[in-house]
Order: sequence, then structure tokens, then C-alpha cells
Amino acid sequence: MRNLKLVIEYDGTNYRGWQSQKNVPTIQNTIETSLSRILNHKVRLIGSGRTDSRVHAFGQVANFKTDSSIPIPSLLKGVNSLLPPDILIKEIEEVASDFHARYSAKSRVYEYHIWNEALPSVFRRNYFWWIREKLEVELMEKAALHLLGWHDFSSFQGSDHEVISPEREVIKVGFRQEGSELTFSIQANAFLRHMVRNIMGTLVEVGKKRISPDDFVKIFKACDRREAGITAPAKGLFLKCVFY
Amino acid sequence: MRNLKLVIEYDGTNYRGWQSQKNVPTIQNTIETSLSRILNHKVRLIGSGRTDSRVHAFGQVANFKTDSSIPIPSLLKGVNSLLPPDILIKEIEEVASDFHARYSAKSRVYEYHIWNEALPSVFRRNYFWWIREKLEVELMEKAALHLLGWHDFSSFQGSDHEVISPEREVIKVGFRQEGSELTFSIQANAFLRHMVRNIMGTLVEVGKKRISPDDFVKIFKACDRREAGITAPAKGLFLKCVFY
Repeated sequence: MRNLKLVIEYDGTNYRGWQSQKNVPTIQNTIETSLSRILNHKVRLIGSGRTDSRVHAFGQVANFKTDSSIPIPSLLKGVNSLLPPDILIKEIEEVASDFHARYSAKSRVYEYHIWNEALPSVFRRNYFWWIREKLEVELMEKAALHLLGWHDFSSFQGSDHEVISPEREVIKVGFRQEGSELTFSIQANAFLRHMVRNIMGTLVEVGKKRISPDDFVKIFKACDRREAGITAPAKGLFLKCVFY
Repeated sequence: MRNLKLVIEYDGTNYRGWQSQKNVPTIQNTIETSLSRILNHKVRLIGSGRTDSRVHAFGQVANFKTDSSIPIPSLLKGVNSLLPPDILIKEIEEVASDFHARYSAKSRVYEYHIWNEALPSVFRRNYFWWIREKLEVELMEKAALHLLGWHDFSSFQGSDHEVISPEREVIKVGFRQEGSELTFSIQANAFLRHMVRNIMGTLVEVGKKRISPDDFVKIFKACDRREAGITAPAKGLFLKCVFY
């Protein structure tokens, strides 16, 4: 039995997220169908984590087991030829039998894209959150640095999705500006549901000077979702990569 | 009677080009319908030129006449609220009564986008021509410089679209590389049908070293469409701006 690891890029615009669901197109369904057709057996993928409707990925990771002896280059070529153009398998490699895309993951990196311009951009409409008001990125950076380390992230978890232990370790945060494109990146051991989008929504309040970096810290320490800002739109979020 | 000039950005992916046609969605149709609804009279746009199916624009220009006294900011806001998210009117301004988006244009700038990577990119699938083989950009630049000036561009005009005088003046050409993105830009007084895409198709042959920059010049001077390379795909082409 071979254990195969996939690295996947997808445009989430036309999908109801990663996770298989009945009667709606999801990324997982779509890839499973293509793999099953080539391998002639039912394939069930294990993903590193779910992504929501309209969320994208540069490097989602999944694995599955197969008895097939098909060479990896043929499998890669075959599955990509069956997949629609908004999903691409970038790599396939054989891994140890105990590799598990979710449980073996050491950390994940997400990026969030903001288009900070007076006018929207038709070419960025599915990949950026358009914010008209000029953002003070230095204030956002100052606030974001407080996320580093082990913390209780209850303030930034999706309402109705409370988990037993809301502690996560944020390893790295950063902003990158290129013209009017602003990219926030965050690496953590794992993420709560909607965590990046809720952090982003609150950081944008800082960037608009509606709240200060100190207010951001108070909201964060309150460990209460009701204190934080809005949830940033899904379309600006990208699962960048997963480390093992 | 006011003469209004529009600057328009659009994603051409889901349209059958600029020009109005019956029973198919075009950019011109879509904007005319929105303007007519707001102004309460039939609007007929004059565009700076046609763009083909799937070709995009950062700055297409059009004009139309109206008796309406609606303030420009209200018109701009109103029309953008009616337009689908893949079309954006970036500017509206009142111009002299003899301004004609097509005949008053002094020159046009087009850009062509190439994604030069071993793997395709799902996020660039509608905006870039994916070329897997590494291109020699210096050779392409060397060839492209020969396009500058007044020339007969018959070799690069769309077959079945021969015009009476195939002479055009190319004012500027250039390449820009950012990572694996290669952008070719070309400014000319006017363009023949498919001219940029045919030039691009032949320049890519130079970049792949299938023909030399000298061969490119020979093809160009032959003034015969059958000599040139393939027509590059429409999706990589952008009307960047129009000068008056």
C-alpha cells in the first residue's frame, strides 16, 4: 500500500470549500473523483485542514493510500488532465505509511490579500478584500506582533465554533506591501475556525485608526469573540503552505 | 448636449469581446444597458477600438452624448452599482463635443502577459499565456526592437482581415520580468486586427530559439501573414491605455 502526498493549488471562487459535501462542488470531491477515475478505486483524501467557501490555496496538502503501482509522473499528468483549470496538483510524492496530512502537520502558513485603493480592481475581485480607506500599515504591524507565541485565541475564533482548547502558537507574522496590494502572512502550529479572517478584520480596524494597537491587545486578551472586529471576507484568504 | 468620456477596466473572460452583438454578452452591450437604465435614454457607445473575446482592458476608452444633466459623480456611482463585478468604469469626464474615442486617439498601449514556469498557475489561468519552456527574453527584446517606427505590418495581421493600408507606427516596445511573469508592452498609433497576438506568437518562437532575431526580421519584412508564427491566445492580452 503506497501512501501518496499531494500539494494542491486551487482557486476557491467556485467551490463550497475543501471538505466533501453532498450535492455541492467542493475541492476535495473534485480531486477524489479525478483520482478515482484514474486509479479505478474509490479515493478518500485526508486534507491538512478545511478551507471555507471561496478560500484559495497555493499549497494545500492531502494524502491517500493506494495499491496501484502507477508511476507518479503518469498519475500527476493524468489527474491534472481531468481536473478543471481552477485546481492543480503541483506535486505528488510517496511518503512513509504513517504520514497523515492533518496530524503530521507541524505548522500552516496563511496569507490574506487586501487591495487598498480608492477604486476596486476587476482582476482582483475574487482574490482581494477591497478597502478604500488608506490603511496605516505600521499600526497594523505593531498590533500583529502581539499575536506571536502561545496564546488563547478565543477572541478570534468563529462564533458557534468554540473548541475545547483555543490555544495556538503563532510562529511568524508579517506584512508585505507592493503598490496598493497589502499581504498579511501568519504562520501557526494550527488555526481555529475563521481565526485569520477574524484577526484580519480587527487589524483593519487598527489600520483605519478606529482602534489603537493597545485596543487590539485588550480585545485579544479578553478571550471573547464579541470584542473583536468583523470577519474579513473569505475571498482574500490563501492557504500558502503546510510544514511537516 | 454633453459629450462624456469613460475609462473602463474589464475582465474579458466571460464576454464575446467589446463590440455589441445580438444575443451574446459583450462589454459594450453591458455598459450601454447600465447607462441607458440610469439616463433613461438609449445610449450608444463609441469605443477606441474593438477587443476580441477574452481580451481584457485596464483602460479602454469610450464616449457617448447625452442631454442628461446628472452630475458626473452620481452617474459614475450609479453605473458601477449596476455593472457586474468584472466591468468597472474608472473615470467619467466631460469632453469637447468633437471628441471621438476612436478617431481622436493618438496612440494605444497593449500589454501581453506570459507565465513562464514549468507548472501552470490556477490564479493566472485567464490572464496569462502559460509557456513551460524557458524563454530567452534578451533574444525577444532584440527582435522586438525592429518593430519600432513606420512599417507595413501585413505579416502580423489577422488572416481574413486584410486592410487597405497595413502601415502602422510603433512608438515603444518593452519587456518587463517579475519572477516568472513576463510582460510585453507595445505602443502604436493604431493596431491591425490580431497584430499584438501575432507579434507575440512569433516573438515566443524567438524566445524558444526556434527562430533567430534575424529570422524574425525576415518574417516581418516579408509582409506575408503565412510567414509568421501562431496567434498568441487572447486571454493574455490587455488594452492598457489610450492616448489622446
